[in-house]
Amino acid sequence: MTKWFETVGNYSDIVISSRIRLARNLVNYPFCSRLTEEQEKQLKTEIKNALEKINLGDNGLTFTEVGQLSENEGLSMVENHIVSPDFLQNKNAMLALSKDDSVSIMVNEEDHLRIQVLASGLDLESALETANKIDDVLDENLNYAFDDQLGFLTACPSNLGTGLRASVMLHIPALEKAGALNKMSGTISKLGLTLRGTYGEGTKVLGSIYQLSNQITLGISEEQAVKNLHEITVQIIEKEKEARKALVKSEKFVDQIYRCYGILKYAKMISSEEFFDLMSYIKVGISEEILTPEIAEQVTTQKLNYLLSQVGSATICQNAKQDLSPEQRDSIRAKIIQEIL
Amino acid sequence: MTKWFETVGNYSDIVISSRIRLARNLVNYPFCSRLTEEQEKQLKTEIKNALEKINLGDNGLTFTEVGQLSENEGLSMVENHIVSPDFLQNKNAMLALSKDDSVSIMVNEEDHLRIQVLASGLDLESALETANKIDDVLDENLNYAFDDQLGFLTACPSNLGTGLRASVMLHIPALEKAGALNKMSGTISKLGLTLRGTYGEGTKVLGSIYQLSNQITLGISEEQAVKNLHEITVQIIEKEKEARKALVKSEKFVDQIYRCYGILKYAKMISSEEFFDLMSYIKVGISEEILTPEIAEQVTTQKLNYLLSQVGSATICQNAKQDLSPEQRDSIRAKIIQEIL
Repeated sequence: MTKWFETVGNYSDIVISSRIRLARNLVNYPFCSRLTEEQEKQLKTEIKNALEKINLGDNGLTFTEVGQLSENEGLSMVENHIVSPDFLQNKNAMLALSKDDSVSIMVNEEDHLRIQVLASGLDLESALETANKIDDVLDENLNYAFDDQLGFLTACPSNLGTGLRASVMLHIPALEKAGALNKMSGTISKLGLTLRGTYGEGTKVLGSIYQLSNQITLGISEEQAVKNLHEITVQIIEKEKEARKALVKSEKFVDQIYRCYGILKYAKMISSEEFFDLMSYIKVGISEEILTPEIAEQVTTQKLNYLLSQVGSATICQNAKQDLSPEQRDSIRAKIIQEIL
Repeated sequence: MTKWFETVGNYSDIVISSRIRLARNLVNYPFCSRLTEEQEKQLKTEIKNALEKINLGDNGLTFTEVGQLSENEGLSMVENHIVSPDFLQNKNAMLALSKDDSVSIMVNEEDHLRIQVLASGLDLESALETANKIDDVLDENLNYAFDDQLGFLTACPSNLGTGLRASVMLHIPALEKAGALNKMSGTISKLGLTLRGTYGEGTKVLGSIYQLSNQITLGISEEQAVKNLHEITVQIIEKEKEARKALVKSEKFVDQIYRCYGILKYAKMISSEEFFDLMSYIKVGISEEILTPEIAEQVTTQKLNYLLSQVGSATICQNAKQDLSPEQRDSIRAKIIQEIL
């Protein structure tokens, strides 16, 4: 089955992916941090029974206990945004993952349930639709902790209300280079959204990829929150497009794009961080039609999206089925890139 | 007619070129710095008459007054080691240049006559043979300033005796990186030779290319001086070969070779200095058979030698028949490189 990231979505030159996450908890159980082992077991069984009622057609769910995952398997899932780093801390936590990796449901992360749906490009609506469908089935079969005033009750008050976190991964190198992000960040904040590093709060920005997500979960419907995020994303896309047009007028920038292509194609060792940087330039080269058609045919957005899922350090170790030194990983990474391009 | 640098000589993976230069002066004239304009004219006519008697077959000499050269034409000749920078200072100086650029005779540089012969690779003997042939014809037709005790009299005492300066351009990146050159320099000095920058004394080293030349012109025959230089060059070649074998065991170095190739092939702007650096890595990649046969077929020593003669800043302006900004030159340089490779 084709993985979700192997498909090319809307505005894929700027929006890498869209993500919807719903936080849910059950009544009759304390929040995860306070569960006894007995309660945790019972809760997991109850939730699993409900999850098995979800019908995703060919894209069915597979269940895995965190304790069954090797370190590299787990970290590879973090690299590919399937699970959160915190999730791996609890060996008794459980993951339900769809075949195409687009639906991942974490049981006993911070909340009893974290329903996550990923989509390629800008596609928050369909991700929300899938998440809602799953949520409805679970709601029928489980007793959600819900308060008429506060909405869904969550372990962290910042999720109270809809329990919804919607986000998009934006590739905005031109706005970044133009120094526009600081000012934009302020405006974004006022609109109830937040702009963060590639792997969320407090993480580094890799290859000019930022996470834009909603902050407010109280007093706003899921649909409205998603609509807001969608609209602001579209505005940022327009601004990034304009900034790219200005950027590629610089001969030095065009030179840099081609240099990145030359390195990506021929280097024998490429670190994960460098891959993000090289990809960033090349993506602009594709979207602005700077790269020759022959090269653009070789380096498609689809291939780059796929590569993004293959070149994480843990993913490389996981696929090689062994722990590797950074040099070995860099060398394998270069081989993978060149095989695929 | 094929230029001398378009041919591939002995040890061409390490020795770029060999050069013989003879300094000669005539009796009955003061040294150049003291010539009156009238004397200078007379001297030039006398020398030109003698030069016209030289028979180089198809590779005949063409005469040019420095005053007739555009600035870029002159500087382009400096870049390609045809004339010295000092030579261009005297508008009344004259150049006799063979069709293949291998023989250049400067009239009224520091000495009345500077006979220079260039050859590809390590080939001091044949260069000396050609220089001697020319010297013999001139000796028959001119009255050389020669002293039985001191030998040929020259403007600078450092050339007294044979008036011979023999040199080789060595590409020795592995010895350089191994930090072996400082120590080697000392030994070389003791043997009456000297190691200098790419364009001679006090110049920068570009792409690990060094000039090795004889220092002693008194009490040693031309043949012995050239033999010494040849023998020490062969020893350095052996050392460089060993050092290269060690160097290419490093994955990082191999990575660097391929990166240089990727940049050379795709960059849109390449400075002259960067070209030397890129070429340096690639030449090792060819000689050590690191680069794949497909790439090695594209990037031959012959092509690199030819490029070396085409990518100097003044040469680019000269060929474009206009003054260009550094950015324009870097852009044209990249185009030339990619057309030729």
